[in-house]
Amino acid sequence: REGVLVTDQSPLLQGGVPSPLFQGGGVGLAAPQDGQSSCQFFSDGRRKVDYVLVFYQRKQISVRGSDRLHRLSAPPHPPHRLSVCVDLAVEVELEADPAEGEMVLIREEFEARLLEAGLEMERDTEVRDQPFCVFTRLHVPWQVLSREAEFLKIKIPTKKSYDLKQENGFSASLSEFWRKVNQPFQPNIPQLGHSTTKQLSHYAPTPHHTPHQAPRHALRHATPHAMPHAPHHAPHQAPHTKYFGEKIGLYFAWLGVYTQLLIPASMVGIIVFCYGCYTVDMDVPSLEMCDKQQNFTMCPLCDGVCDYWHLSTACGTARASHLFDNPATVFFAIFMSLWVATFLEHWKRRQISLNHSWDLTGLEEEEDHPRPKYETVLLQKRQMMRNKEKKNEKKKKKKKKIETGVEKLTWRDRLPGYLINISSILFMFGLTFSAVFGVIVYRIVVSALMAMSPDPETKSNVRVTVTATAVIINLVVILILDEIYGAVAVWLTELEIPRTESNFEQHLILKAFLLKFMNAYAPIFYVAFFKGRFAGRPGDYVYVFNDYRMEECAPGGCLIELCIQLSIIMVGKQLIQNNVFEIGIPKLKKLIRAWKGKGISLEEREEQRARPPQQWNLDYTLVPFEGLTPEYMEMIIQFGFVSLFVASFPLAPLFALLNNVIEIRLDAKKFVTELRRPDAVQAKDIGIWYNILSGMGKFSVIINAFVISFTSDFIPRLVYQYMYSQTGTMHGFIDHTLSHFNVSNFRPGNAPTSSYLPETTVCRYKDYREPPWSAEAYQFSKTYWAVLAARLAFVILFQNLVMFLSLLVAWVIPDVPKNISEQLKREKTLLVDVFLREEKEKFHLLQSLFSSKDQRGSDTSVVATWSLNAVISHPCRLGVLFLKQCDDGTY
Amino acid sequence: REGVLVTDQSPLLQGGVPSPLFQGGGVGLAAPQDGQSSCQFFSDGRRKVDYVLVFYQRKQISVRGSDRLHRLSAPPHPPHRLSVCVDLAVEVELEADPAEGEMVLIREEFEARLLEAGLEMERDTEVRDQPFCVFTRLHVPWQVLSREAEFLKIKIPTKKSYDLKQENGFSASLSEFWRKVNQPFQPNIPQLGHSTTKQLSHYAPTPHHTPHQAPRHALRHATPHAMPHAPHHAPHQAPHTKYFGEKIGLYFAWLGVYTQLLIPASMVGIIVFCYGCYTVDMDVPSLEMCDKQQNFTMCPLCDGVCDYWHLSTACGTARASHLFDNPATVFFAIFMSLWVATFLEHWKRRQISLNHSWDLTGLEEEEDHPRPKYETVLLQKRQMMRNKEKKNEKKKKKKKKIETGVEKLTWRDRLPGYLINISSILFMFGLTFSAVFGVIVYRIVVSALMAMSPDPETKSNVRVTVTATAVIINLVVILILDEIYGAVAVWLTELEIPRTESNFEQHLILKAFLLKFMNAYAPIFYVAFFKGRFAGRPGDYVYVFNDYRMEECAPGGCLIELCIQLSIIMVGKQLIQNNVFEIGIPKLKKLIRAWKGKGISLEEREEQRARPPQQWNLDYTLVPFEGLTPEYMEMIIQFGFVSLFVASFPLAPLFALLNNVIEIRLDAKKFVTELRRPDAVQAKDIGIWYNILSGMGKFSVIINAFVISFTSDFIPRLVYQYMYSQTGTMHGFIDHTLSHFNVSNFRPGNAPTSSYLPETTVCRYKDYREPPWSAEAYQFSKTYWAVLAARLAFVILFQNLVMFLSLLVAWVIPDVPKNISEQLKREKTLLVDVFLREEKEKFHLLQSLFSSKDQRGSDTSVVATWSLNAVISHPCRLGVLFLKQCDDGTY
Repeated sequence: REGVLVTDQSPLLQGGVPSPLFQGGGVGLAAPQDGQSSCQFFSDGRRKVDYVLVFYQRKQISVRGSDRLHRLSAPPHPPHRLSVCVDLAVEVELEADPAEGEMVLIREEFEARLLEAGLEMERDTEVRDQPFCVFTRLHVPWQVLSREAEFLKIKIPTKKSYDLKQENGFSASLSEFWRKVNQPFQPNIPQLGHSTTKQLSHYAPTPHHTPHQAPRHALRHATPHAMPHAPHHAPHQAPHTKYFGEKIGLYFAWLGVYTQLLIPASMVGIIVFCYGCYTVDMDVPSLEMCDKQQNFTMCPLCDGVCDYWHLSTACGTARASHLFDNPATVFFAIFMSLWVATFLEHWKRRQISLNHSWDLTGLEEEEDHPRPKYETVLLQKRQMMRNKEKKNEKKKKKKKKIETGVEKLTWRDRLPGYLINISSILFMFGLTFSAVFGVIVYRIVVSALMAMSPDPETKSNVRVTVTATAVIINLVVILILDEIYGAVAVWLTELEIPRTESNFEQHLILKAFLLKFMNAYAPIFYVAFFKGRFAGRPGDYVYVFNDYRMEECAPGGCLIELCIQLSIIMVGKQLIQNNVFEIGIPKLKKLIRAWKGKGISLEEREEQRARPPQQWNLDYTLVPFEGLTPEYMEMIIQFGFVSLFVASFPLAPLFALLNNVIEIRLDAKKFVTELRRPDAVQAKDIGIWYNILSGMGKFSVIINAFVISFTSDFIPRLVYQYMYSQTGTMHGFIDHTLSHFNVSNFRPGNAPTSSYLPETTVCRYKDYREPPWSAEAYQFSKTYWAVLAARLAFVILFQNLVMFLSLLVAWVIPDVPKNISEQLKREKTLLVDVFLREEKEKFHLLQSLFSSKDQRGSDTSVVATWSLNAVISHPCRLGVLFLKQCDDGTY
Repeated sequence: REGVLVTDQSPLLQGGVPSPLFQGGGVGLAAPQDGQSSCQFFSDGRRKVDYVLVFYQRKQISVRGSDRLHRLSAPPHPPHRLSVCVDLAVEVELEADPAEGEMVLIREEFEARLLEAGLEMERDTEVRDQPFCVFTRLHVPWQVLSREAEFLKIKIPTKKSYDLKQENGFSASLSEFWRKVNQPFQPNIPQLGHSTTKQLSHYAPTPHHTPHQAPRHALRHATPHAMPHAPHHAPHQAPHTKYFGEKIGLYFAWLGVYTQLLIPASMVGIIVFCYGCYTVDMDVPSLEMCDKQQNFTMCPLCDGVCDYWHLSTACGTARASHLFDNPATVFFAIFMSLWVATFLEHWKRRQISLNHSWDLTGLEEEEDHPRPKYETVLLQKRQMMRNKEKKNEKKKKKKKKIETGVEKLTWRDRLPGYLINISSILFMFGLTFSAVFGVIVYRIVVSALMAMSPDPETKSNVRVTVTATAVIINLVVILILDEIYGAVAVWLTELEIPRTESNFEQHLILKAFLLKFMNAYAPIFYVAFFKGRFAGRPGDYVYVFNDYRMEECAPGGCLIELCIQLSIIMVGKQLIQNNVFEIGIPKLKKLIRAWKGKGISLEEREEQRARPPQQWNLDYTLVPFEGLTPEYMEMIIQFGFVSLFVASFPLAPLFALLNNVIEIRLDAKKFVTELRRPDAVQAKDIGIWYNILSGMGKFSVIINAFVISFTSDFIPRLVYQYMYSQTGTMHGFIDHTLSHFNVSNFRPGNAPTSSYLPETTVCRYKDYREPPWSAEAYQFSKTYWAVLAARLAFVILFQNLVMFLSLLVAWVIPDVPKNISEQLKREKTLLVDVFLREEKEKFHLLQSLFSSKDQRGSDTSVVATWSLNAVISHPCRLGVLFLKQCDDGTY
């Protein structure tokens, strides 16, 4: 088997960057300076290597399946416009296996097209008879770069530069302070934003600029924007610089903004937590719960085997609960909702600033080319239609001719794909839910066994133990399913046959997000909103599997369990994903690859030892770049922990912050040292991720409202204090929340079989139900409905208040930063000035040219005089005819 | 006194429109064709009159205050760029009264500047010694138009045009059907959208177009876009065409889209209403209320004088209630919320389509010039600072010099304005609320008097009468306050000293909207959410002013009252505003002006009769255009009726539709025949109105949720049916909603003094309270809390469901219509082609030019050969030097 692997596809943006693949080793590279520079050039020592193509040829059968096999078909369409280069991006995995000779032909044709497009090429001279990989090095000449830069409408700097407005006074010192606070989180970033001048830029396809400026622009763009760790040099002298393009730049910028804004959030979170710690000894309800004198005899937690117990044994969880379930949490939930709104607005501004400083303002999205897979399916469909038609013609000659121009795939063609999609997604939802349910069953069974233990102290502590172990099981399940879902989402999206690459990315992201979100949050949602709500009451417990009671929350409330669940899943997921998946697995893969490489015959290895591998050989062993989706996904799921359930766990932003500080470094290191250099892709924004973030922000408002009103004890406390309390204080709250149960109402066999409190006649349980002496005994009491109404009213109030405040925040913070809009205006004015001056000069030049000719009396061509007349008769358009200085290349 | 009145300020956009002011009379004009054409030109009969300036001179004292006096100061800055014309927009009302001579000087200078900018001028030759008004006619030559079009970056059509894709199949017949449905609502609109080709356009300041095309573009733009009634001719032959510019075009387009979308809404509304009519005889609760056998004895509605009454007497209102308060209403509320989302999305698309067909795509907002008022205040501030500085220097020579460069007004300068603003707005809120309160008092008093009437039939019918009369009072108050608030908002915004005209407009709109919204909706909010909720219970009624009971809703529910309130205010407001304010008052003003004109001396009048007044004299008598704000405001308030309380009044869209069909015609007639021609202003969107609409859409969701759950009986019925009903039907609902009152619990004097039902021991009242025999007699019952919880849960469910669906609608409908985005892509490709071909041609032309010279052996200038070399060495830029065909003016 033989294939063609194109490691870098669009050479247009990286123009002038000295042979990017050579710096694959990046920071860790220790090759000698002269040896390296010889690698960077063609054998003539002058032309730089811009791209390395790898032609993969079959040698050993054992290698066949070890690497993803990319084969390049001839571009299905004739080259568009002047550029063939765009079509180089086509990577087709053909189903059929053409003969080896055919592959060589295709390769030849491909290389011929490259040469035709103006690229220069150098083949590996040391080709052996049956090589493992053939490396072809490409050089993109200046002219090709210029041409392509024009067609891509890359903005080009003019000679004119202007001063940026300096901040002064209070705002300057504020921003300086902010910079210093952020210093530890942004190591080694060159202060690009702090230059005080900016070059005026303009789109290429106007005659105001020489083509020489196009590649210089490319050079300028060839500097790392927001990549920490990637040192910034002037591009001409930068041997270690990797250029990643705007898309990756935006990811790091986004991560930076998010991490920065986590600082205030985690500070407020710490304050809220400290408030909880500080007030735990003043909290009346938990004091009452721990009070041994007010010793409430609680009803047994299960029928028959369980015994009565004293509420004071649950003192520990009650005190722990207060740490997270206090009035400050409500404030924190509101704060975090506004924080989300601020973050989104701030990011919009940052994006516009970056677009401005990276000269992307006004960049229009290029139409994507169809994906090869799509083209293939379309081709097949056309073929099929033609065959059908032929058959029809044979059968009935009279039949009306069917239109053969199949322009695109319709929903009919995609229907099977959609059906598989829907059913798979539903199946995976089911999988997630059954995983959650499995863990619940584990908890119920273990709890029941523990509850039978006679020692009450064990019981209350065991609850935490059971919860924690169950969460760890949950975590492992989540991590495994996460990986599976990621792969399944790719497979499902392929089945949909999306037309363009960006379509593919969007669908993939949405699907993967949906699956991973469900996966990560299903157990948390269960604990927050369902646990303990269908448990029944003493004497009428709800049973599952005939034997086991539905679980319910600890007397301290469900919030503490939610908190444990959240913290373990969040911290565990991040630690494991960072360590195992982001460091461990790539290392492992590398090891495996190295181990496979040992399969080469002994003589070859000796040959290798004699000739040290070229830089491209080394770079080829790096891991291929597989898109930013996993990176974003990890952060978005984390953003969910920070925003969705923050009311129950104020320390979430802190943990997220700590994780991200490490994450940025790990990502940067991975990009620079462990991955093949990714394509530099132009992007104006983070695309669909912004929508997902904003949707999550909206969702978080309602979730937090429900957590506060239904999971926490905030509302019952308020209702008690203002509707029922005689003194207006919280004293008596615990008594108020506990309903009465007359033990004589136990059905036969349900009463505790052996009890150390045999004289109990009335036991208590946590619910708002009518007492046994009421006419409607054990029905929900009036208090229950009043508290429910209060909870719902709080949800409405909270949701609408926060939504209003968020809208206000979004409205108050303008989308375009003031200094950017001012700069844009100034640039516009300056451009008009430059344009006017230029036209004037051209006009004068032209005039002198023609007048000198006229003086000599030579017969001026008709066209020329007539042009001059035209120019003079329209003084408002100073130069219709103009000349360009091109010799020095600077304009 | 003498002043300068500039009737048209920016001559740049109207270029080529034949003397717009002449067609002031528009449709109604009956001047002879030849006489008119003589008016359209300068005395030479060739140059068209593009603008008419009016210099207003004092003649009689009585006239002095009759007209708004605009005086033109010299532009505060030197003319910007090449255009002075922009500065013509400056209209300053100077505080000081300069001498008459000075004014003449200013006028001279102003006219000199116009001439300097290239405009041509013709003064009124028939100047009398002390004329009333002096008219100066302006002609804007071709060159000036071209130059300005370039600076304004007006897009210019290229020669190249391309075919638009024809719709076919189902979508074509659908759009044809839609067009036919809309036919009656859009008379006389030329089918501009139905042309099948479109000219390729490009911005002016590239050398691909001759300057000749700029004014042609202006001509093309000089056709009415969306103005009904304004007949569309080719601009060169159009004597009756008034061009209104994009901003007014957008208003009519918006009004059109809104009115079109009202058609389905009103159809669904009618269906919902019909459902109510159809099911009224099957509605169990209203049947039970009318059932004479189930004759509930109701408690007296006031203490002492009121008697017991039978519920069946309220049968009428109960049946009427059902028309609007039935399950279909809930569906309709959801439908209308989605309708609002659809409307907003549809408008976004329409806006983009219009931008495309009006060639505004890519238009950037021009920076506004500061308002004259702002400049004046800034000047005063500078002066003050300088004086202060001087004083300081005199006092202490050593003191550090204060910076004199006062660049802008800070919040300190605006503080007094803001304070007055806030206090005035608060005062006006108070005014609105007291008006509402006054009407409530009226209602309470009249109701109390009526309730004393012994005839129970009168009582139940009188309630409707009282409600109706009260609403009419409300309506009158609203109309009066509306006018006052409009004026006050302008005054308040002036106090804020906004910097630019667009700032001014935004602040004004927000303020006026806030005030008028409060004004129109305060009584409706009262009826919907407050009326009857603080009325107390029999035996413990709440009293205001010691004597009068708080009012409560009829037994049929508050919804019917809300419905009456809404329909009267909505229909009344629109009828009166349309007839009185939009037709009556302008007519009245015209009459007054005509009457004032009679103050001229007899001889002048005879002179006038001898010489018929010129067209500009006639046009001068038209009403000045005062912005679109009132037009939009009227529609937005109407949009509120359609969206905010639509749950209570499904016929609102129908009334809105009927109103708008008339409104469009009235507005169009007003614009064409009664107003001076407004400036044609470029605009890409409807600005802040969109935000207001979208905010109202969001607000309407929560309001409708509350109306359904709290104002209507929907939730109590559901709760009864599924929680309390024995049979699962609605039978017994009325009994369930009525609480019991033991007449022995009346405090002395509160029981009816004389009753025709003296044997009553227990009477009933509408509330969920504990019965007299309960331990907590007359406290809210458990049912009350359960219903409350259900109501609140419904609000949460409804709000979140509708918000989610709205988001879905917004997400499903793409912002940019597919055909537009395809057209944009095609245009881009075509432009590149045109550009390439052009460059190639130029290159060949150039080559032949130089080669012919070389052949003849004449000494070619150094510059020329060197240019050619430059061109040849860069084949990717085909033409660096090029020539332009300008003689035919078409390119």
